[in-house]
Amino acid sequence: MPKKIGRQTLCFDNAYIIEGFSIAGPKERDGNFGSYFDICLDDDKFGEKTFEKAECKMFKTAIDEILKKGQIHPDNIETVLGGDLLNQIISASFCMREYDASFIGLYNACGTFAESLLLGSALVDGGYKDNLICISGSHFSTAERQYRYPLELGVLRAPVSQWTATGVGASVVSSFKNRKICRVTKATAGRVIDFGVRDVNNMGAAMAPAACDTICQFFRDTKTTPDDYDKIFTGDLGRLGKKILKDLLREQEIDLDGKLEDCGDVLFKEEQQTNQGGSGAACSAILFNSFILDKFKKREYEKILLVGTGALLSSITSFQGESIPCIAHCLEISL
Amino acid sequence: MPKKIGRQTLCFDNAYIIEGFSIAGPKERDGNFGSYFDICLDDDKFGEKTFEKAECKMFKTAIDEILKKGQIHPDNIETVLGGDLLNQIISASFCMREYDASFIGLYNACGTFAESLLLGSALVDGGYKDNLICISGSHFSTAERQYRYPLELGVLRAPVSQWTATGVGASVVSSFKNRKICRVTKATAGRVIDFGVRDVNNMGAAMAPAACDTICQFFRDTKTTPDDYDKIFTGDLGRLGKKILKDLLREQEIDLDGKLEDCGDVLFKEEQQTNQGGSGAACSAILFNSFILDKFKKREYEKILLVGTGALLSSITSFQGESIPCIAHCLEISL
Repeated sequence: MPKKIGRQTLCFDNAYIIEGFSIAGPKERDGNFGSYFDICLDDDKFGEKTFEKAECKMFKTAIDEILKKGQIHPDNIETVLGGDLLNQIISASFCMREYDASFIGLYNACGTFAESLLLGSALVDGGYKDNLICISGSHFSTAERQYRYPLELGVLRAPVSQWTATGVGASVVSSFKNRKICRVTKATAGRVIDFGVRDVNNMGAAMAPAACDTICQFFRDTKTTPDDYDKIFTGDLGRLGKKILKDLLREQEIDLDGKLEDCGDVLFKEEQQTNQGGSGAACSAILFNSFILDKFKKREYEKILLVGTGALLSSITSFQGESIPCIAHCLEISL
Repeated sequence: MPKKIGRQTLCFDNAYIIEGFSIAGPKERDGNFGSYFDICLDDDKFGEKTFEKAECKMFKTAIDEILKKGQIHPDNIETVLGGDLLNQIISASFCMREYDASFIGLYNACGTFAESLLLGSALVDGGYKDNLICISGSHFSTAERQYRYPLELGVLRAPVSQWTATGVGASVVSSFKNRKICRVTKATAGRVIDFGVRDVNNMGAAMAPAACDTICQFFRDTKTTPDDYDKIFTGDLGRLGKKILKDLLREQEIDLDGKLEDCGDVLFKEEQQTNQGGSGAACSAILFNSFILDKFKKREYEKILLVGTGALLSSITSFQGESIPCIAHCLEISL
């Protein structure tokens, strides 16, 4: 099979996901997927002095536990690819002090997990690595402090806002076929799309055009249609963003009715008052590494798309009057 | 040739650097390599309202100009891999709104350029991309504001400090051999090393152990010695960091006398009062894409190592009493 189709799509023959792991916070435990997560925290400070240290500890826990769960010796993991939402991706970077694997730091906001799977699959499929970990996560309280307001202020949340998920998701991508749960078979790397949205509360509206662009490109490149997939999971557009994406795709004559699920839309229960649903680099990472992999284990999914979406703003760019450029990377995951 | 040696080292047969470009600020112009840079700014605000927007404009200029210089049509660039030092790597991300190429956002601090060459070479060598741009940069004034103090405060700089370089460096990595300037032949991905240095002014001391770790690993994996290389360029250890690295390597019985150059050490002139020399994600990126590529063009270099070094801290981690974890990625560049 060719290794590429068109400008944006990569093809993989030998990139197997052999293990997945998810750790999540108490609010995520009480959401729709609590029973699927490997570890749920009762205290989202995780016994640490600060929320930042708690986020870092979730990364360490995810790496330690995925190795145990998969009975993989740490020496067999060659590289960890990943990142988080904090300035200088400190949660991923600081966690990596504890390990002998090399580290590739990534940042595509909430699309970082999809980015890590794209690159990790290329490194494994290309023969450069045999086993590596793709990882990403976020924490509600560190994200609020950094991007919005200190929690203590009790600022009212806008109706269009989403709730940053607390958690870390990790996958082991491997060249060893006999242990596979599923395969990463294709990946479309996304372009940066900016539709001029300036409302930092409304990430769904900002990110939907990027998701639309990448999904259309994927279908064009691979000559597939939504009918070829059991489900199409977007990262964290939330309820409003999902609606916008459906409208945008309909303009392109692509109908995802009955196929489209958004990780942000479904993560929390209606009564949990998250407004538009979940978001954050944890959102698609923990759902993929629990519920979605479980469906593959049970052979209830044969082929899905995972479309990680990210809003690439910072607080400085918003202060300087900039709009919000966004990105989406699309992965085809097959049994 | 095998695609990997050991856990950390990747091998490439077909990753060619076909063009390089550098844009630098006025202080860099007045340094030791002013005549090598493609564009030097007289005004480091670059006609923009803020330094952040100027940094972003340098990224755009680098991409536009490397395409012109290499007579490459924008449609032929499939992906841009890169990042910068600002929170949420906004300079690279926002610049990518202007282009149709896909974007892979990276962050390994001042080692980001080396990280982008490592991943970019794997994507090209593996057959997933034919032409892509690796890019990284920084700006003195945006870095000072974000990591240290507003310039207006006029805070005295510590004797162990370095001066963040203003500039952006970019390379086109391609599968087209006939246009090659040089090849990326091997890459050792670095581990995160933390020797417990807490002084945020003394990045050289913090980063030297990471550089030592990766260099030793590279020589072990590839069974080469310093004699096999014309020069070994470290990213931006500065004068003090370079001394520490030499001492650390001597303990490992590796003598780099006459071989080791540090991009930070040589970027500025002694009388420019930068204390320990240059630093920043621009430092090795602009030197590599000007002076070093020029040496390859003139066939004065046959084989070198480029060891990008990065300090993975943030201001939050320093406030919370953390030490500084660091990383270094080593690239073997051959004629």
